[in-house]
Amino acid sequence: RYVPVDHTRVSFDAGFWKSWSDTARDVTIPTQHMRLDEEGFLEVLDFDKPAGPLARPIQPSGLSMQHFFDSDFGKWIEAASYTLKNNPNPDVEAKIDAIVEKLENGQMADGYLNSWFIRREPEKRWTNLRDLHEMYSMGHLLEGAIAYYQATGKRRFLDVMIRAIDHIIDTFGTEPGKLRGYDAHEEIELALVKLYRVTGDPRHLKLATYFVDERGRMPSYFDEEARRRGEDPADYVYKTYAYSQAHVPVREQTQVVGHAVRAMYLFSAMADLAYENDDPALKSACDQLFDNLTGRQLYVTGGLGPSASNEGFTREFDLPNETAYAETCAAVALGFWSHRMAQIDLDGKFTDALETVLFNGALSGISRDGEHYFYENVLESHGQNRRWKWHYCPCCPTNIARFITSLGQYFYSVKDGEVAVHLYGANTAELDVDDIFLRLQQDTAYPWDGDVRLALGLSAPASLTFRLHIPGWCKKARILVNGQEIDFAASMEKGYAAITRDWKDGDEIRLSFDMPVERVYAHPAVGEDANRVAFKRGPVVYCVEQADIGTEPQRLRIIRDAALKPRFDADLLGGAVVLEGDALEADAGDWSGTLYRTTRPSLKPKAFRAIPYHLWANRDEGAMQVWLTEE
Amino acid sequence: RYVPVDHTRVSFDAGFWKSWSDTARDVTIPTQHMRLDEEGFLEVLDFDKPAGPLARPIQPSGLSMQHFFDSDFGKWIEAASYTLKNNPNPDVEAKIDAIVEKLENGQMADGYLNSWFIRREPEKRWTNLRDLHEMYSMGHLLEGAIAYYQATGKRRFLDVMIRAIDHIIDTFGTEPGKLRGYDAHEEIELALVKLYRVTGDPRHLKLATYFVDERGRMPSYFDEEARRRGEDPADYVYKTYAYSQAHVPVREQTQVVGHAVRAMYLFSAMADLAYENDDPALKSACDQLFDNLTGRQLYVTGGLGPSASNEGFTREFDLPNETAYAETCAAVALGFWSHRMAQIDLDGKFTDALETVLFNGALSGISRDGEHYFYENVLESHGQNRRWKWHYCPCCPTNIARFITSLGQYFYSVKDGEVAVHLYGANTAELDVDDIFLRLQQDTAYPWDGDVRLALGLSAPASLTFRLHIPGWCKKARILVNGQEIDFAASMEKGYAAITRDWKDGDEIRLSFDMPVERVYAHPAVGEDANRVAFKRGPVVYCVEQADIGTEPQRLRIIRDAALKPRFDADLLGGAVVLEGDALEADAGDWSGTLYRTTRPSLKPKAFRAIPYHLWANRDEGAMQVWLTEE
Repeated sequence: RYVPVDHTRVSFDAGFWKSWSDTARDVTIPTQHMRLDEEGFLEVLDFDKPAGPLARPIQPSGLSMQHFFDSDFGKWIEAASYTLKNNPNPDVEAKIDAIVEKLENGQMADGYLNSWFIRREPEKRWTNLRDLHEMYSMGHLLEGAIAYYQATGKRRFLDVMIRAIDHIIDTFGTEPGKLRGYDAHEEIELALVKLYRVTGDPRHLKLATYFVDERGRMPSYFDEEARRRGEDPADYVYKTYAYSQAHVPVREQTQVVGHAVRAMYLFSAMADLAYENDDPALKSACDQLFDNLTGRQLYVTGGLGPSASNEGFTREFDLPNETAYAETCAAVALGFWSHRMAQIDLDGKFTDALETVLFNGALSGISRDGEHYFYENVLESHGQNRRWKWHYCPCCPTNIARFITSLGQYFYSVKDGEVAVHLYGANTAELDVDDIFLRLQQDTAYPWDGDVRLALGLSAPASLTFRLHIPGWCKKARILVNGQEIDFAASMEKGYAAITRDWKDGDEIRLSFDMPVERVYAHPAVGEDANRVAFKRGPVVYCVEQADIGTEPQRLRIIRDAALKPRFDADLLGGAVVLEGDALEADAGDWSGTLYRTTRPSLKPKAFRAIPYHLWANRDEGAMQVWLTEE
Repeated sequence: RYVPVDHTRVSFDAGFWKSWSDTARDVTIPTQHMRLDEEGFLEVLDFDKPAGPLARPIQPSGLSMQHFFDSDFGKWIEAASYTLKNNPNPDVEAKIDAIVEKLENGQMADGYLNSWFIRREPEKRWTNLRDLHEMYSMGHLLEGAIAYYQATGKRRFLDVMIRAIDHIIDTFGTEPGKLRGYDAHEEIELALVKLYRVTGDPRHLKLATYFVDERGRMPSYFDEEARRRGEDPADYVYKTYAYSQAHVPVREQTQVVGHAVRAMYLFSAMADLAYENDDPALKSACDQLFDNLTGRQLYVTGGLGPSASNEGFTREFDLPNETAYAETCAAVALGFWSHRMAQIDLDGKFTDALETVLFNGALSGISRDGEHYFYENVLESHGQNRRWKWHYCPCCPTNIARFITSLGQYFYSVKDGEVAVHLYGANTAELDVDDIFLRLQQDTAYPWDGDVRLALGLSAPASLTFRLHIPGWCKKARILVNGQEIDFAASMEKGYAAITRDWKDGDEIRLSFDMPVERVYAHPAVGEDANRVAFKRGPVVYCVEQADIGTEPQRLRIIRDAALKPRFDADLLGGAVVLEGDALEADAGDWSGTLYRTTRPSLKPKAFRAIPYHLWANRDEGAMQVWLTEE
């Protein structure tokens, strides 16, 4: 089992991630607090005042978005905290402290903590775990509290949340007199594992384990609970508990179903518990679900959950482009899950999934200016999809924020005498492996270029194994140690090349990944992508935007064997490699008012360029397409 | 201006329409009454009993489907009545009489008639024309009353409805003291023109004219009305009055927008008024809207209104296949509108639209067994779309029923010395043109075959002009009179060939329409259909169903120049021409668990067949596709 190197020890001083992480810290964090304030999300904490009118109405499910406002500022605190250790910011700290003060003030004597129920419906607390997100909200507060404690050493928020968890331990479980419930929206489970790693308190791990094991047991707690409320369980608005991955016990689940974010949070917690409890059965369930997801239900961008109606999965191979829901949160959470899997089982397929969301379907959720967002990450648009300043349900902005502000943690892991390098991108990292202090400097223009230089600073010579991820997209890689090419084929294991030797200060590893423009095709069962092609270069998926070609990309016909030329365009939104080439365009000029005709549209030459998908919708409004029609 | 020949004078004794119309009469009409009864639609008329719990809950708009239950039995009465004159049925009459009895019993002293408001909220009548469908429901009752009167001569229902209309005349209009309102869901307008044609009462025509002219006047009546209810007009759930074609006056509308059924009902009424009031400006608005619809917003099947969210139109050229809403009612109503347009202006483009919905996007709304329905008529499915026994909002079943039971009226029109033949399909018709009695017998296997024989029975020799529609799909037609081919090119006017001569009893016209299998392509702006092809033969659009090929049609790749062979398959759902040919199939065999790869899917030969789109989903569950991927 590997241990990730903490994000505070990885700095992006140059390269691809520098501007994204600087912007997250300097723009995203402060503007998100402004939005939370403007939109009334923080007002819910004014426990001394009478509750005002709802900022978000009650939906047919009985849920108001306001039920889980706590989760939004919880996630904001978490995201903000990740920036504080290396970049102390008294203003941000003061804002967090103010929230914590109010939370502590509102917390009930028995530890219960949820702004909605305390203030509006205290008698209804713990009566509807199926719909009302109480533990989901507490989970996000807990993750925020842990991050804030780790960043600042301040325990107040953490102590508040430990009291809240004590209350949950008193209330839920298999012991007589306790409720055998669990929250329909997973989240607290993975937060509890994080807490356990801070406190070492086995009760915290046990509670997480209970929630995961209890899930999906029949007869369903949600039925029981509905009847206690005097409701018919059959009236459940989402019809099936598969919506919450609670239709069968988690170890029996083989197909990824239901709400995509819920699924990813659950699977992340399952991976955490497989890791902490050394539980191969849970790991094996995760493996099967991971293969189901990546083999049958994942967009090429790493987006997931095609349908808006359940914010999640439908049938296998259902990957519509224009109506893709592909929520930012779900892609971020697939990053969480993949990363966790790789710590138990160093397999490049997990790291590939992480890299895919990182450069594509998650990163697309935030604008280049750091203060506009996508909730849905479509793969095709006629221009109707624009980024939001804030969202009606703003779960995604804070999720992508916490992903970016803690990004460093995904790069390296260590275990006895081993350093695993998962991701590439310029950074400087400090690692402790065994008793050795290792300073690693990655110099690279990755993902724009496949050459990576890893310079080693060592406190003392050491025999170490480097496990270097060879990305799944790469068909030809070279590795040089101190200028000398090495043959790593025999050492390759599940997508990682192993180099074991005695290392000394000043040593250098060079990796060179061939990074041609690739044409990507989808499985024949994906009807939407029939005769369509997507372009990828390295880990970056491309799209064509109307802003670049002056016409809808839907009219392009990509010539089968035309070569595309990559070119670094320093002027494009901070600089990016674009792809340029010649295609054809279906000509509307000879259609004279008819919508259908019996002759094929005529085609005319058309030069085009493609830009990284994650950069789309940062310029003029217009159509966009990832999967282009191939002639 | 032409006058349509009444449906009671056109009989389908053989050929394509015989089984559809027999089934409509013998299965659809009785089973629909059963459903209305089972589902509580008729209970709303038990005015003597207290109102029970809602059969349909209130939606966010404030509307319950139950608000317009009257419209559903109104349409059922209309559909049933169309069968009664030629096929008297005491049982059906008794059922209608029972409804009429209850309606009369419930009608308020001032003539007001609506089961919801009388029974549940009498104080709220006429307070929300924007959302609650009061006049829409009365319009359908009125159409039912007229049809029943015309079929049976019984005036009771008609008189009830005339009193209701008198009440509306007293309540709405430009005169001082009246409300300047109109219903957001158009329908009463065209019902009023029908009433005027029965009563000759100019007040009925005037009221229809008022409603159409008032529509879209600013400031909006809907704003005024919302403020009277103490609501903010900005809270309107559909956001824009374009939803109801009430955003600008109808004469200024140039793009078809909003709810598709509303739009088609409005345009039908506009055509009616252009006809009755001889109003060229209204006709010209209709022309522009018709060209917009057919040139930019119509599915190849005649389906219309792509989006579920507003049950209507979005942007031009937005014609998604799998999520097509394309409500049956909208296609039926396009038939209404097109037919009305052709009476004012004998232009084949109108008749072509009528023919297209008739054989495709409307007819697909009812199953071959006559008791299962589609509300949405998608052009592509992965098998999730199945026909309903009844629908939550059952507007479509009765709409397609009344279309089919009154189908005869669409075939012929007359005016001084002229007979227009719009549609082909075996039937026997009786026409009065001038003082001549003309018996027309159409012998044909149309639409399966392009040969049509028209045998003339004449009470006396007569000089008449026959205007014969040459369908827009037909590239080569021949006409023979008494065995002698005639050159009709010079007489062609807007899609109709004119033959003027002295006719005598026993004369015969033969038409021969070349009917090859055609490949159809969509305008380049329809991104969904890029590199896709649809098959059409004559007026019939084809689709491929999984039931026929054992695999999802989405995997087919149609070879560009492969020939398709038509063949009459007597065993297919009552007999139909199928198309057979060779294609390729994308092979999933060599994908080994991956969802994406950098090489194109390999293709293997695959024989396939296509069936008429209107017959889909009558056999085993499975995928379906109209627009097939072309290799």
